[in-house]
Formats: sequence, structure tokens, C-alpha cells
Amino acid sequence: MTSFLDLPADSGFGLHNLPYGVFSTADDPAKRVGVRLGDTVVDLAYLETHGLIAVPGAGRAPVFHGTLNAFMALGRGAWDSVRGRLQDLLSADGPDDFRASETHRASGMHPLEEVTMHLPAEIGDYTDFYSSRQHATNVGTMFRGPENALMPNWLHLPVGYHGRASSVVLSGTEVVRPKGQQKPDDGAPVFGPSKLLDIELELGFFVGPGNELGSPIPIEDAREHIFGFVLVNDWSARDIQKWEYVPLGPFLGKSFATSISPWVVPTAALNPFRVAGEAQDASAGNPEPLPYLRQSGERSLDIELAVKLKTAQMDEAETVARSNARYLYWSPEQQLAHHTVNGCNARPGDLMASGTISGETEDSYGSFLELTWRGTRPIQLPSGETRTFLADGDSVVLAGEAVRDGVRISFGEVEGTIAPAR
Amino acid sequence: MTSFLDLPADSGFGLHNLPYGVFSTADDPAKRVGVRLGDTVVDLAYLETHGLIAVPGAGRAPVFHGTLNAFMALGRGAWDSVRGRLQDLLSADGPDDFRASETHRASGMHPLEEVTMHLPAEIGDYTDFYSSRQHATNVGTMFRGPENALMPNWLHLPVGYHGRASSVVLSGTEVVRPKGQQKPDDGAPVFGPSKLLDIELELGFFVGPGNELGSPIPIEDAREHIFGFVLVNDWSARDIQKWEYVPLGPFLGKSFATSISPWVVPTAALNPFRVAGEAQDASAGNPEPLPYLRQSGERSLDIELAVKLKTAQMDEAETVARSNARYLYWSPEQQLAHHTVNGCNARPGDLMASGTISGETEDSYGSFLELTWRGTRPIQLPSGETRTFLADGDSVVLAGEAVRDGVRISFGEVEGTIAPAR
Repeated sequence: MTSFLDLPADSGFGLHNLPYGVFSTADDPAKRVGVRLGDTVVDLAYLETHGLIAVPGAGRAPVFHGTLNAFMALGRGAWDSVRGRLQDLLSADGPDDFRASETHRASGMHPLEEVTMHLPAEIGDYTDFYSSRQHATNVGTMFRGPENALMPNWLHLPVGYHGRASSVVLSGTEVVRPKGQQKPDDGAPVFGPSKLLDIELELGFFVGPGNELGSPIPIEDAREHIFGFVLVNDWSARDIQKWEYVPLGPFLGKSFATSISPWVVPTAALNPFRVAGEAQDASAGNPEPLPYLRQSGERSLDIELAVKLKTAQMDEAETVARSNARYLYWSPEQQLAHHTVNGCNARPGDLMASGTISGETEDSYGSFLELTWRGTRPIQLPSGETRTFLADGDSVVLAGEAVRDGVRISFGEVEGTIAPAR
Repeated sequence: MTSFLDLPADSGFGLHNLPYGVFSTADDPAKRVGVRLGDTVVDLAYLETHGLIAVPGAGRAPVFHGTLNAFMALGRGAWDSVRGRLQDLLSADGPDDFRASETHRASGMHPLEEVTMHLPAEIGDYTDFYSSRQHATNVGTMFRGPENALMPNWLHLPVGYHGRASSVVLSGTEVVRPKGQQKPDDGAPVFGPSKLLDIELELGFFVGPGNELGSPIPIEDAREHIFGFVLVNDWSARDIQKWEYVPLGPFLGKSFATSISPWVVPTAALNPFRVAGEAQDASAGNPEPLPYLRQSGERSLDIELAVKLKTAQMDEAETVARSNARYLYWSPEQQLAHHTVNGCNARPGDLMASGTISGETEDSYGSFLELTWRGTRPIQLPSGETRTFLADGDSVVLAGEAVRDGVRISFGEVEGTIAPAR
């Protein structure tokens, strides 16, 4: 598949990707849906208005004006149809309805640098899981020792918690260092700016049609409800979290900001990158999950992930960790089946994140807590600086891409810079 | 204040209350805002359309068509103005713009039994606190013994967690018994319907204008952001909760349903019922909170609460517990100041609940877990039945009212009946 735009052969944003996002322009401040092709944004609201794409099941209501929620709600049939049509319309040798019209090309495409991106969806609920075995083991080892690292429930269910939807922000939004209560080991609680500000490298997915209250999504149907994926930085204030989290879980240590990348990579674009994942049975020394969590086929996604750090003194970001989504023990399908098995309803636009993704080596951990082992092993930076946790002015970039057989699918980046506490 | 309607002197829904709700009618299925006066619903969308109420700050956009979110966002000035105008318009001796018009009365009022109630707001985020000292002590005593009942953080901050917004439902919605993983003490985890289905008696509030991300709400401003209160039943599956909740808190043990009462009692209606609450200083043997949580004035609300149970065999509900909102240690203002102190943004329509409200005596506990002391002391019912946790067909009603100096403010009820697991 070759686009009619002149893209480099190794572009991560070619016709195999076509991620969805929500944008506006200086000329037209209305939010609308676009797909990214190279460094161009194709305006789906324009294509819809001009009859260049039809959306099965949508009726007469516009689908691409506003956020992605309406399109997410329509399900796999509509997604596949629109994706196929876009791949045709935007290819060098497909139908020329779009590419042959000077007017359409001028009005229906925008240079990436001229658009303003917005959150891809109105996020009704945001859920954060804890699905990387190495991450759970690392954290458990630090706090309880290696013998009791994994909690007894961890291998039996995808542990998760409700996060805060209101403070999910788009890449590029500054992150104000949170204030809160912290408890010194040897004294009364104190109030002040967090001193242990951290990141969590995660992969998130947006829910498609979802389910009615009381009607779970079976594991075998779960993939039909996964619209697509984004990078997630689950900013974490470890000192606030440590004091508050027993017994009801993370709260203010997380809720000050969660950043996501602007382009939602469709599930269909990632299907070629499926891999087996760690066996969930006795062959790998693991308990077999209960039937409602048992998943056949390739459960994991081979997506390369990176954590980059740029302090105020540095000219360019330094990669401080490389990880991979294949390290996740629990899959998105298992997360969604578990989340709804009690009847809880998931709605179009709900966001579910994986939890920190850590690999087996010390340079593949997805948080500074782990990379610096609770601050005991500072990271050396090319600027001569060191870091344990984040300083004001530090910028963190998470990046992701899937590469195989000459096809590259890029997630782009999610960036956030720490502003001083107010 | 006497209404022009013929209400009993002790009505809990007189002019002193005027709670807000969202309703529709058979003739007009559009959701709109009403106030309850006795057993009548006054249609505020109608009053707005016909120029009988003006909303300061609203501009030309309709405020009362749809949910309460738009009105909640306008803040105290608008709330006081509308409430004052309604008390005038609906009184026996105020301006006769409304009451003297046969047309207005016929079109702008509906018998309560003829309307369908809906959720009062689109709830962006739902947060559940844990603010009753007796409840936290009871649960801690059962699980860790009396010496370590309260966690070290409990007296220093209002412990809370993010709940699930999608499954907040209105009173009268059936509650399907959830299925999920449970862990027998002496065996592998099993999957099935919850056997320990419980309630939590709570008081919730809706957030008004709220705050921008990064800008906390100071404790002294917090009351200006509290629109009004509802009863909350935080249904809980104790067996699912027990197995899943370490270390990230309650998840599927709660997210299958949270029921709320339909009428939002305005904060202004409750001001006459403020009481001191337990001293938060050395005079009561308590640590003084950090300055951001220190609240002057009367912190608590004297609201009588009741838990009623009706099994399928019973003709009427039996009161199994009586409690009071004054037993809460942490106030709504403290909850909101804490929730936003890290910069987390609260939005109009967010719901925050108190946590189970338990008094000091065994008949004032707000959950069956406590009332039956983990199922060891079954409740005897007039039907001859006993209950530890809830059986299919059981209906639970929570009720609340504030009574003082001849004024009665009723919350009405929140009801839910247990349907068998699917």
C-alpha cells in the first residue's frame, strides 16, 4: 500500500497505520476527527460532509464532528469499513474521488504543524491496571522483599483500580508538581510539594461499543470492543502515594495528571504484531486462569517502547529505558473481560491502561522508582546531571512503535514537562 | 413559608427543601430539571421558557433543559437567586405570576407519580471516601484486631478512592447480583455469584463550579462548590472485594452498582442543621489536621438516616439500622479540599460520597458487614427469616431526613432490589 502523498518508505504513519485523533484549526475551531498520514492530517469531518466516506450503521447523524466517541460506539463493522475506504482513498492507485480534486485536497488535508490536537474522546471512566509481572515483582520486592513480591491474587486476576478521568490530559500539557501529605519515617505527616515525582510507562486502549450494566463482555468477544491504543504516562507522586494508599489504593498520588498520546492506533493496525506472551499454565509454572479469563491465540502485542528524559540543561532527550508491550502478562482482552465480569458497564470512550510496563533487565523498567531502585541508583545523564526522581523543568517523552516485515506502525509520543509546584 | 399547594405541616418537601431532580413525562420525553414540592414536580424548564425564572450568569443558553450540570456549574450566586425566586413563586403569599395562571399551573406542574426520574447529572467522576470513624474502626477491628483498627493515616486525611461513574444508577434500578472471583481460606480461587452481598449507607454531594487542573480549592471556599446532597447506597460484594483489593483498593467488589436518591437537597436547605462534629484537636485526643484541612465553624450535618430491609416474604420494610450524618469525622468541605489539593480538577456534576456512616451503637451501623459482625450475628426479621448478607429478592431502602424547630427536610429514599446473578 503506497499513499499518494510522498512518504518515506519507513514512515510510521503510512497507510498501514492511519491512527485517529481529534483536532481543530485556526480557521475552524470546531473539534473534529482526523487521521494522520505522514505529517498530514486528513479531515474526516470534511470527507463525511462531502460524501467521500460513508459510515455503516451511523444513520444520518454526523460521526466525525466532535470527538471519537460516536465512531467508537459503532463497532468493528464500521471501523473496518472506514479504514478500508480510507486506505483506498489515500492510496496512489485507488479511486481518485479525493486525490484528483484540487479543492478536496486543499480543504480536506492540513499540515500537522498547523492543527491543534485535543483529547481523542470524552473519557467517561479511566481504569488503570497493574499487568506487568516484572513491575509488580519489582515494586513488591522493594516494599516486601523478594519472597513475598507478588501478591497472592496477582497471577489469578488482572489487578486494577479506578483512576481519575477529569485529569487525563493530552501530550504537551504541562504537569504541575503536586502538593500533598507525606509521612517521614520518623515523624508526623507534613504537607508540601512531592519530592518523589515519577512516571509510569503504559499502553492504554479505548473501549468501543461496550456493554450494558449487568451484561459482561465474554473474553472471546473482548477484542471487538477495543477501538485502539495510545501511550499513557501515569504520573505518580510516590511520597503522597505511599502515605495515602492503604487500604483503598492510589488516589492523590496519581490524580494530578495522566498524559496520553494524541493519535489512537487502530486495533486492526496492530494485528500483525501479535505474539504469544508468557504461558498462563503449568508449562510456565503459572496457575491457569479461571475460564472467564482464559484466552486462546496470541495474547500479546510486540510494541517497542521507550522512556526519554530531557532536563532543562539538555539539548536533546536521552533514552533512559527501553521496554516492550509484550512483557504484559494480562492482555487488554483479559482486562476488559475481568472489568465487566461483575456486570460493570464499559462505555464508548472509556480508557483502560496497562499499568507500568517493565522488562526483565534493569534498563527496561518503566518507572524511575524501578530504574533507580527507590532512588538508590541515580541515573547518569550526558549533561553531567543525575536523576533519581523528576526535577522541575524535566521533560519526559514516551515513544512507541511496532516494526515487522518492513511495516512500521508509530504511536508517536506523549510528552510532559514538570512545572514547579504552585 | 407556606406553599400555595396544600401540604401537610410536617411535609419533608416544603418550601424549606425544594430539592432538584431530573425528570421526563409521557407527553414529553425530554429530560429537564424540576423541583419537588410535596408530591408535585415543578418544571423549571417550563418556568425558564416562559420567563418566570431568570438565572444570573447563564446568558442565553437554557439551563434547565437536560441535566443539572449546567446549573451546578453556575455557582452559589445563581443557586441562591433561583432558590429565592422559587420560594417566592411557590408561596401562598408571594408574587402571583405562576400560581394565578391556570395555564402555567397546568403545564408547569406534574404529579410526582406521573413523572419518570433520571440521574440528576452526568457524573464525570465518582469518588468514595471512608470518613466515618466508627465504620473504619469496625472494619479494622474485624480484620486486624482492636489495637490496630484505624490505619495510621486515617486521622490525618480523609481516605478515599476513585469509584466507577458508569455504574451509578438511580433509585429503583434493580441490582444484579455480581459474579466474580472469590478466594476460600483453604483453596484456590473460585468464580461464581457473590455470597456476601452488602450495602453501604452513605451521603453524597454533587460538585458545583469546581476547579481548573493545577488550582486546588481552599478549605474556606469548599462549601461554595457543594451544590447539594443525595443518599448513596454503595453496594458491596465483600467476598469479591476481599480477594481483589490488595494493594490497589476496591474495584469489582463495588463497580457493579452504586444507587443514589433522585432528589438533590440543596446545600442551602441544610445550613440550619449544622452541628459541631467531633473535635479535631488534642481536646478530643485527636491530631490537629494540617492547615489545608483545618475547618472552622460547624463541620457536620445533623441528618437522620435509616436502613430498611424488605425480603420477598415481607409486606413492608423493617428498619434494621438508624444512623446520622453527624457521625462523619471528615466533612464534605474537607473531602473536597483534600481531593483537589494535589491539583486534581473537580467538575460540575462530579459525585463524592462519604463512605459508610456508622454510629457508636450496634444498631447504628451502616452495613450488614458491621450489623451482623461479619455474619456472626444474624439479623432477625419479623417474617421469621434471618439475614447476614443480602438474598435474591431482598429490597434495601435508605432514607434520610433533617428535622429541627418544626422544619423537616426529607431526602426521600434510595431503593434497590437484588436480582439473581445472570
